[in-house]
Amino acid sequence: MALPTLRVIGFILGIFLITLAVSMVIPMLTVLVFDRTDDIEEFAWSALVTLGTGLLLVLLPRPANANLRPRDMYFLTTMSWLIVCCFAALPMVLIQEISYTDAFFETMSGITTTGSTVLTGLDTASPGLLIWRSLLHWLGGIGFIGMAVAILPLLRVGGMRLFQTESSDWSEKVMPRSHMVAKYVLGIYVGMTIAAVLAFHWAGMSVFDAVNHAMASVSTGGFSTSDSSLAKFDTNTHWVAIVFMLLGSLPFTLYVAAVRGHYKALLKDEQVRGFVLMLGAVSLLFSLWYWLHTENVLLLDAFRIVTFNVISVVSTTGFAIGDYTLWGDFSIMMFFYLTFVGGCSGSTAGGLKMFRFQVAYSLLRASLRQLIHPRAIIRQQYNGHTLDEEIVRSILTFSFFFTITIAALALSLSLIGLDFVTALTGAATAVCNVGPGLGPIIGPVGNFASLPDEAKWLLSLGMLLGRLEIITVLVLLTRSFWKH
Amino acid sequence: MALPTLRVIGFILGIFLITLAVSMVIPMLTVLVFDRTDDIEEFAWSALVTLGTGLLLVLLPRPANANLRPRDMYFLTTMSWLIVCCFAALPMVLIQEISYTDAFFETMSGITTTGSTVLTGLDTASPGLLIWRSLLHWLGGIGFIGMAVAILPLLRVGGMRLFQTESSDWSEKVMPRSHMVAKYVLGIYVGMTIAAVLAFHWAGMSVFDAVNHAMASVSTGGFSTSDSSLAKFDTNTHWVAIVFMLLGSLPFTLYVAAVRGHYKALLKDEQVRGFVLMLGAVSLLFSLWYWLHTENVLLLDAFRIVTFNVISVVSTTGFAIGDYTLWGDFSIMMFFYLTFVGGCSGSTAGGLKMFRFQVAYSLLRASLRQLIHPRAIIRQQYNGHTLDEEIVRSILTFSFFFTITIAALALSLSLIGLDFVTALTGAATAVCNVGPGLGPIIGPVGNFASLPDEAKWLLSLGMLLGRLEIITVLVLLTRSFWKH
Repeated sequence: MALPTLRVIGFILGIFLITLAVSMVIPMLTVLVFDRTDDIEEFAWSALVTLGTGLLLVLLPRPANANLRPRDMYFLTTMSWLIVCCFAALPMVLIQEISYTDAFFETMSGITTTGSTVLTGLDTASPGLLIWRSLLHWLGGIGFIGMAVAILPLLRVGGMRLFQTESSDWSEKVMPRSHMVAKYVLGIYVGMTIAAVLAFHWAGMSVFDAVNHAMASVSTGGFSTSDSSLAKFDTNTHWVAIVFMLLGSLPFTLYVAAVRGHYKALLKDEQVRGFVLMLGAVSLLFSLWYWLHTENVLLLDAFRIVTFNVISVVSTTGFAIGDYTLWGDFSIMMFFYLTFVGGCSGSTAGGLKMFRFQVAYSLLRASLRQLIHPRAIIRQQYNGHTLDEEIVRSILTFSFFFTITIAALALSLSLIGLDFVTALTGAATAVCNVGPGLGPIIGPVGNFASLPDEAKWLLSLGMLLGRLEIITVLVLLTRSFWKH
Repeated sequence: MALPTLRVIGFILGIFLITLAVSMVIPMLTVLVFDRTDDIEEFAWSALVTLGTGLLLVLLPRPANANLRPRDMYFLTTMSWLIVCCFAALPMVLIQEISYTDAFFETMSGITTTGSTVLTGLDTASPGLLIWRSLLHWLGGIGFIGMAVAILPLLRVGGMRLFQTESSDWSEKVMPRSHMVAKYVLGIYVGMTIAAVLAFHWAGMSVFDAVNHAMASVSTGGFSTSDSSLAKFDTNTHWVAIVFMLLGSLPFTLYVAAVRGHYKALLKDEQVRGFVLMLGAVSLLFSLWYWLHTENVLLLDAFRIVTFNVISVVSTTGFAIGDYTLWGDFSIMMFFYLTFVGGCSGSTAGGLKMFRFQVAYSLLRASLRQLIHPRAIIRQQYNGHTLDEEIVRSILTFSFFFTITIAALALSLSLIGLDFVTALTGAATAVCNVGPGLGPIIGPVGNFASLPDEAKWLLSLGMLLGRLEIITVLVLLTRSFWKH
């Protein structure tokens, strides 16, 4: 990579760091409100170091007219998340007096909106620290939407070109300029968060808890202010969480269209329809199974408990009420599978994402029909777009990379000494950015603290890979990327 | 399906049943040799019922000139394996006095060369029953090679067209007619089995044990004459098994070429090279790991034990010496992954098969290069054949179907009450036709007997699906297959 390009990338990274430093004002204000001023120094130091580095990168001389090529974007994207994580971990180390490994894991889990935690004693933890964790979710969530809407389709990663076509078709009709879209998305994100705060507060949470859980729901993150997650709070808050986790896993570009008068955009979208239909069917049938297999539970309670946990896992949030791994073997297998699903593309959710399943399903149907009618020409469509060879190929190769990444991560974890279930489900939950795994250690009522340091670094890598749709990072590891 | 077509299919099924009935002479002769004539009646009755049904199907009037279309082959292929299994299970029910469920499971495991067993007390079991189990492997093995060489490429299932092109290229040069190929394959299969008998006997087995293990090795089956599998026998027999399991998982069409003077066919084949190289690397590194992590084991012993178990699982044989699930977490994960690999296409082995991994690898490499050089035209080759869109698509969709089948089977098993590890690895080992799973119940020293009946039927279905490369069966479940 040429030096001028690196300087431009450094400039952009600097801006990100300055933004991060400024955002540290929020936990500082929180600390002041709660009169816990012993924590303020730690945030101030963290902000100062971050700001200093950011300013240094911004003020370094850079070429006047250097343009970034698409391939430079791979490097920039990966580095942004990595550098931001390195600095955002500072307050954790200073306040909680945990190792940098733990702080890095917790921060990566925060900004990738995964929600796996190494911290315990959350119910009595410093409010500044709690709000900082939630804020990491919130910033990571909007960052990911921006990346999914603006950068990944351009890079043709994992079939995301499907959405490039859509948004460029669309910009001619509805949106004159792309920074308009960005403003609208941000506005909707902020608006949705405020609505979530009000709803959680109405449902019985304190303002502080409401703010934290609002940020963690809308971003499909999953950090809570209690070790027992939402099980601590009133059942009304569960319904509020269900609504906002669901909203957080739908495509934000369609909200923009809806706000601008195209109300039917959401209803007509194949991905949204498939996602909502699938969630509805799974929640209903699974609730019925749970109700039939559990003594002394009302049907409505069964529906609330199951739907909450299903939407929590599928939206890749990772809140939990109760331990669903105690419901039996079928439930364990179901939640293992649900870990991979993910939300819709263009949302804050991780996982494989709904549209890839839909395209794969349509492909599999077509392939069977082709075997029966070898000479027939079968055209496939998705959301009104023809599925050309390139999109199909890139979706399929993405799924392969996804599987291989999880498999390699699980093997590495087993080499460190993690048992089969912890290694396999830990790898899956990290790469899918969900949060909880299965088994007694990292299950829904477990905690990642007891894992060895190497495992925490590997899982952090898994979260980053998952968040960047894997290929964005893998490209950097090829020889041809670094040639010329 | 039209009546004339059904009658032609019935005629062919009848021939299979007559062949099966005739092959029951072998356990009868064995029973006579061992003076266990109390079992002869059971085989005679089974043979009679099978022969009668076969003759009935053959003698029914059929149209003079009905040709089977390719799509009828899907039905014929699936039905052949199913009907043969139904009748081949008869001696087991009569001799062992087990339920028809158990007998069907054991027989399906036999003819699909899976090797999972529900029987215990093998060391003292009836010799007629033991030889019948091994014979099922042996017949199933040659049946599968025939299907893989002659039928699947024609049906364009799972990228097998790669091998159609090859064998048609090849028939012009080397083989004048396809029934010549069939004769040669059969001759080599028989010759290899005789060589294995001699080698096992030389290594210390009785003639009876040698015959049984020869049939179970060459067919990559895995049934043994002892509950402790090959752990009962001398270490020399382990090396013999290693050789013949490996030979059984290489493409038999290449042996034919070698026998006819094209010695280099085997050495130059990309699939064979990749397979042998992969096995060598995995065995060496894994042995080293085992040696370093185990007290009081010689390096040569470590190499023998690890290589035996690795080749047993990868070749989908399923013999075991010792319990590799006790070697630690890394080993458990490794054997879980190795379950999926499988041997080469055109062999008796199951699993995903080597060439699909190689094509996928080349595809993934190309996709990364394409992201970096969006305008480059990247051509992919495999074994000298261009990987066109159709082959790539069919290999990828095959892998999807494979994954979905295992996932659906595992979910069904968990619904019956099998635990996470048993359900997941049981489904995988059935569909990959390997034999042992993981965990205390169905692990390498376990047994499938204690599973509920529903699980045995589901696993039998999994074995059949795996053996028929899944799609052959799935096509029958589509609406368009039954139209017209």
